[in-house]
Amino acid sequence: MGSETSNKLYLEDLHVGQRFTSGSIRVDEERIKSFAAEFDPQPFHLDDTASRSTIFRGLAASGWHTAAIAMRLLVDGGLPLANGIIGLGGELAWPNPTRPGDTLHVESEVIEIAPSRSKPNQGVVKVRSTTLNQDGQAVHVFTGKVLVVRRPG
Amino acid sequence: MGSETSNKLYLEDLHVGQRFTSGSIRVDEERIKSFAAEFDPQPFHLDDTASRSTIFRGLAASGWHTAAIAMRLLVDGGLPLANGIIGLGGELAWPNPTRPGDTLHVESEVIEIAPSRSKPNQGVVKVRSTTLNQDGQAVHVFTGKVLVVRRPG
Repeated sequence: MGSETSNKLYLEDLHVGQRFTSGSIRVDEERIKSFAAEFDPQPFHLDDTASRSTIFRGLAASGWHTAAIAMRLLVDGGLPLANGIIGLGGELAWPNPTRPGDTLHVESEVIEIAPSRSKPNQGVVKVRSTTLNQDGQAVHVFTGKVLVVRRPG
Repeated sequence: MGSETSNKLYLEDLHVGQRFTSGSIRVDEERIKSFAAEFDPQPFHLDDTASRSTIFRGLAASGWHTAAIAMRLLVDGGLPLANGIIGLGGELAWPNPTRPGDTLHVESEVIEIAPSRSKPNQGVVKVRSTTLNQDGQAVHVFTGKVLVVRRPG
């Protein structure tokens, strides 16, 4: 933190309606399966054949894998905050599954800015980050509260 | 799905207030760092020394790593649903950081049951899953909506 913050944003640089677009990541089929084997070992995330007879009708990434990929896209410039991305919580949804070979990117928008009353050097910013596949379908929507600091003195 | 559902639960087996407790997982320091390197490469998740001067005051797991561990605990019997755990979305919070060496388990409670109007064989169940460390501190709270099917006729 602090070494390469020159073109990154502080609380006073943000405004409601401000938008950011991330780079993109291609989702690998083998990584879908290995992530699921470690964290979400269910047939629709692990096995091509078994997944076809499930509600997903084919292999789908764990929603937590999609969420983690979205975070990587945000950290890699998708949400350029000077103090990093420190999430306090939020609401999430997975409107569509992530499929093997999908290319994902994240579009974010500042929804609300709440300066802290007790800590004048920081605030809580609500950001809606929508992760989209190559067809423009939303696979993950996270409306998160992030801690953002003011520019030091 | 369906091969080992004998002692697992269908929609009609659930009631509001029903509780479940998962097994536990110990969180490894090296895995905290490697997960972060892939999905959340920020100093407070990657580096012991750098993390000390951040808001976390020491190495902390990515919130998405904690969320993924919670999912594994739910899949491994923490939420024994016959059709698996199919999450539609929900609200999450990370009240405390997960630290290297923490042992986590998940306590879940059924909050709301909404049978589907259009699809009589299923419903959406709201479950609050609180992930706790060995000191009883909540590190992750996810109030999620899961799709649950009725016992096949």
